[in-house]
Amino acid sequence: MDGEMKKVLLRVAYDGTSYHGWQRQQNGITVQEVLEEKLTELLHEEIRVTGASRTDAGVHALCNIAVFETHTRIPAEKISYALNQRLPEDIRIVESREVCPDFDLRSCHAHKTYEYRIVNAAFPNPVKRLYTHFTYFNCDVEKMREAAQYLIGEHDFRAFCTVGAQVDTTVRTVTDICVTREGEEIIISVSGNGFLYNMVRIVAGTLLEVGYGRMEPGRVAEILKSRDHKNAGPTAPAKGLCLTRLEIEGL
Amino acid sequence: MDGEMKKVLLRVAYDGTSYHGWQRQQNGITVQEVLEEKLTELLHEEIRVTGASRTDAGVHALCNIAVFETHTRIPAEKISYALNQRLPEDIRIVESREVCPDFDLRSCHAHKTYEYRIVNAAFPNPVKRLYTHFTYFNCDVEKMREAAQYLIGEHDFRAFCTVGAQVDTTVRTVTDICVTREGEEIIISVSGNGFLYNMVRIVAGTLLEVGYGRMEPGRVAEILKSRDHKNAGPTAPAKGLCLTRLEIEGL
Repeated sequence: MDGEMKKVLLRVAYDGTSYHGWQRQQNGITVQEVLEEKLTELLHEEIRVTGASRTDAGVHALCNIAVFETHTRIPAEKISYALNQRLPEDIRIVESREVCPDFDLRSCHAHKTYEYRIVNAAFPNPVKRLYTHFTYFNCDVEKMREAAQYLIGEHDFRAFCTVGAQVDTTVRTVTDICVTREGEEIIISVSGNGFLYNMVRIVAGTLLEVGYGRMEPGRVAEILKSRDHKNAGPTAPAKGLCLTRLEIEGL
Repeated sequence: MDGEMKKVLLRVAYDGTSYHGWQRQQNGITVQEVLEEKLTELLHEEIRVTGASRTDAGVHALCNIAVFETHTRIPAEKISYALNQRLPEDIRIVESREVCPDFDLRSCHAHKTYEYRIVNAAFPNPVKRLYTHFTYFNCDVEKMREAAQYLIGEHDFRAFCTVGAQVDTTVRTVTDICVTREGEEIIISVSGNGFLYNMVRIVAGTLLEVGYGRMEPGRVAEILKSRDHKNAGPTAPAKGLCLTRLEIEGL
C-alpha cells in the first residue's frame, strides 16, 4: 500500500479442470475470483482484475492476461513470485510487470491461438484425460485440414457460436487453422483476433464430423454461409481446449 | 463363470496420482486392488492378478501388464471393453488377450523403458504439474547426457537403490539412457531388463545434480563404484516418472 497507483499486468497459466472458467460468477469458483482474493491478501488492498480471455469452465490456458491497479510498493516484477506462494498449484503467474497507467486491455488488439487436442486411439490415455477429448472413431486428418481452410479469413461466424451470446457482431477474423497429427493426438490450432462464445469448440466439433466422414469438407463453407448454429457440429468438450498464445499489440 | 480355465493378459495404463502404487497394501488404494475388485465384479469369481511392474505411489504407466486366471466365457479380447466401463477414468485397459496356460510373468524376460519428465523453466506449467517434476535451475543437458553414459551396461546399482530393498542381487543391466530436451521439458529415458526400488528416480535425481553443475559427469562412475546410496543424488519425485514401454519375451 501507500505507493503511487500503478498498473500491473500478469501472465496467468492455469489448469481449468477445477474452475468454472475465468470470469467471476455465482455457480462456482473461477480463476478471476482466486486471483483477486490472493492479490487482495498479498497487497492489503481490494484488487479487481480485468482479463484478456474469458475462458469457459474447464478450459485451460498457458498465457492468459490479467491487469489491475495497485498502490503497492512491491515491484511489479516480484508480484509473480509472491503471488505463486499463495495460489493453488493449478494456477501459476508466469510473468508480472508494470504497464502504462493508460494501458487498456479492452481497447487493445489481441492475437490469440487456441489449441484443441484430441486423443484418437483405440482407448483413452489416462495421463492425458484432463487435457484432451477422446475419440476412437477413425479420423481423416487430411479432410479435416481441407475443411478448415474454409474458415480462414474474415467471416460471419454466427453458425459457430452458441445461441444467446450477446455480442455486437458475429464477424471475426481467423488468421490460421492448422490440423496436425502427433502420434495418437490430433491437434487443431486456431488463431485469430477474437472468438465468439464456444467458437473454437464448435469448430473442433464440426471438423471432427468431417474427420469421421459424416460431413464433406465443403459442407463447412455452407454451414458458415447459413449463419445457423443448428447446421454446425456439436460443441467439443471444454477439457480439450487450451489458450496457448496471446499477443497484445504494443506490449 | 463355468468355462474352462484360461489365462488372460491385460495391458494397463494409469495415472498414478491418486494411487499408492501398483501393489496391494494397507496404507491406501492401489491399482492392483482396483483391478482385482472390478474384475471380480465383472467375472463373478474371485480374481487375483500378477503385475509385471510394481510401480511406486504416484508413478504413472502407459503399458503395465497384469495376468490372471479365470473361468469366464467372455472372450479375452472383450474383457478390456467391459472392464473399462467399470474402472475409474484414471485406469484404462488398453489391451486384453488370452495367453498360454503355462505363461508365467515372473519367469519371463522383460524389457522396460521408464521416462522421467522435468519441466525446466522459470515457472511450473499447471497443465503438466501432475506428470512432471519442476525445476527452475538451469540444466546443462549435455553434461547430463555425458554422465548418463556411465550407467549404461551391466553394473551393481546398489548406490542407486533405496536402502532396505529386499533383493537377491543389485546387479542390473541398463541397455540405454537418453537425455533430451523438448521445449521446456527435459526427458530422461531409461531402458533395461529390470530396475531396483526407486532406481530410475535416483538416477534422475543424480543426473539433475550433474545438470545443475553441482556434480561433475564423471562423479556418476564413482558413485556407481562406491555401491553406497549416500553418494547418489536425491530421489526425484514420483510424479515425473512413467513406465512407457514394457516388452515381454515371447509375447
